[in-house]
Amino acid sequence: MNLANLTTSEILEGIYANNVAIVSKAITIVESTKPQHRLIANAIISGCISKKQDSIRIGITGVPGAGKSTFIEQFGGLITSTGKKVAVLTIDPSSRRTKGSILGDKTRMQELVKNPNAYIRPSASGSSLGGVTRKTRESIVILEAAGYDCILIETIGVGQSETAVHDMVDFFLLLKIAGAGDELQGIKRGIIEMADAIVITKADGDNIQRAKLAKMEFTRALHMFPPKENGRSPEVLTCSAIELKGLHEIWELIVTYCNTMKASGHFLNNRRRQNENWLIQYLEQELLSEFYRHPKTMELLPQLKNEVINGNSSPFLAAEKLLKALKSH
Amino acid sequence: MNLANLTTSEILEGIYANNVAIVSKAITIVESTKPQHRLIANAIISGCISKKQDSIRIGITGVPGAGKSTFIEQFGGLITSTGKKVAVLTIDPSSRRTKGSILGDKTRMQELVKNPNAYIRPSASGSSLGGVTRKTRESIVILEAAGYDCILIETIGVGQSETAVHDMVDFFLLLKIAGAGDELQGIKRGIIEMADAIVITKADGDNIQRAKLAKMEFTRALHMFPPKENGRSPEVLTCSAIELKGLHEIWELIVTYCNTMKASGHFLNNRRRQNENWLIQYLEQELLSEFYRHPKTMELLPQLKNEVINGNSSPFLAAEKLLKALKSH
Repeated sequence: MNLANLTTSEILEGIYANNVAIVSKAITIVESTKPQHRLIANAIISGCISKKQDSIRIGITGVPGAGKSTFIEQFGGLITSTGKKVAVLTIDPSSRRTKGSILGDKTRMQELVKNPNAYIRPSASGSSLGGVTRKTRESIVILEAAGYDCILIETIGVGQSETAVHDMVDFFLLLKIAGAGDELQGIKRGIIEMADAIVITKADGDNIQRAKLAKMEFTRALHMFPPKENGRSPEVLTCSAIELKGLHEIWELIVTYCNTMKASGHFLNNRRRQNENWLIQYLEQELLSEFYRHPKTMELLPQLKNEVINGNSSPFLAAEKLLKALKSH
Repeated sequence: MNLANLTTSEILEGIYANNVAIVSKAITIVESTKPQHRLIANAIISGCISKKQDSIRIGITGVPGAGKSTFIEQFGGLITSTGKKVAVLTIDPSSRRTKGSILGDKTRMQELVKNPNAYIRPSASGSSLGGVTRKTRESIVILEAAGYDCILIETIGVGQSETAVHDMVDFFLLLKIAGAGDELQGIKRGIIEMADAIVITKADGDNIQRAKLAKMEFTRALHMFPPKENGRSPEVLTCSAIELKGLHEIWELIVTYCNTMKASGHFLNNRRRQNENWLIQYLEQELLSEFYRHPKTMELLPQLKNEVINGNSSPFLAAEKLLKALKSH
């Protein structure tokens, strides 16, 4: 099959049939910045959205070294063992300073890669978090139409990527390794407010005692935070991905949580509020990419930038010049 | 004088003459979201930009409790005692969760408020960091045209506001109080990379020993970071704002730093790179506010939002509908 010549409806059929090559191609189209791909992407998303699927979207965050890869490798395997299909996406806006990828090479999750009921997609790259966010949301829609019941979205605690992930998931998991005490010092308050559960990873060997202490400290500290809008406070658990301990409890917690939230209406309300944000972010993203694709912008912006960099124009006047040119176009 | 009836050139004359009432009015116009104010704001900024001033822009960040207000109160006073005029601005994007102001009521800096060579402007409020950023940049331009030699821009370590402030200053100061050891745990790595100096505050009374230890720990830890592009590593100092100790050294450090950077060309290069970012952010901000002011948006967006919230439309299709309506308008 030559993937390059597929029609939109052939792509959609392939997605519905869980044809992995076609799913990957569809995500590539969605991630593309080429205008001709945007049209096909829109048709694909429309087709996928109409095919409603029951799914659980789980966000997983943690600093480098918190054991995210090992956790997802084993946790993903556990989910497939319950008869579900699992897909893993990452949100990885390129670092502003280094322009490099934060998460680095994706030769991780060696076992999960080979699992027929799992799909792993390396990160969408992009210069803006907004762009990455939109692509991730659209990838989720494709993966759900392809029959994945559980979508894991991984991110690293950099900038506002956790907020972005939190805004597209049903359950938000913070991974943390036990440190030398003083556990709450090292994490941003905002993450604690977002987390539905905190998991102390690597609770094995010499680490068990420290992990237990960290669990106690977190549990105690979390009492100081008010419960969330849905009435819940985050739970604290420990796990060992290499010894396969504690993973089942985490999965049980998430399933129970989602069922409770579905019964109370919070699950749907949360998704609808997320959809409202998606609408706004989609609109803004589209407007900006239209602006950057505009012939007047492509003609004038590079020289205006140069004028500003060389000190021959103020940023303010340069911007006004371009905006005027766009209006008279 | 009735400020409401001033012409743009009268406002500009007032700014150049350091008429504080007119400076405040000009900043209020710049902060306004009303379209009719935007036109006058543009004229004011054009006029102020053409009046080039030598200035030092200093960013000051630190968590609540780090002693920012007390520090700025005394540090601002010290700068005016060297014969310079100082202005204080804050970057305070309203918290996303609470919708309230982070920095709270500004009945702080009681002494500096009364100082004839100091100007304090409470925070521009706004729902987006981009909006606050643009207003702050424009306020800086007005204050420099009004003859302020030193602009202090205060922020709190929330979200990306430090990155925003770092992107508009010549020197970036991180304030930190000595804790119970483990100093580096509690701060985001990104801030360390941005800081030109770290100041341990409240180094007085019982705290002196802890402050000295914290200084040592930071100095040691900073050796692990590579030097910045300009060849420098951040310096670590201690100070006591209430005992007026260490403030002079900080001011000396900043002046020497700026002179060295001016000689090497880094000062100007940095400002030009900041201007390039300003150009881009200004353009994007203008495009988005134009979109939200558009009659078609004002007509359709509320009902599309409702459809999405009520589950009657997907965010994706709702967005496409509005974009189509805008194009055919």
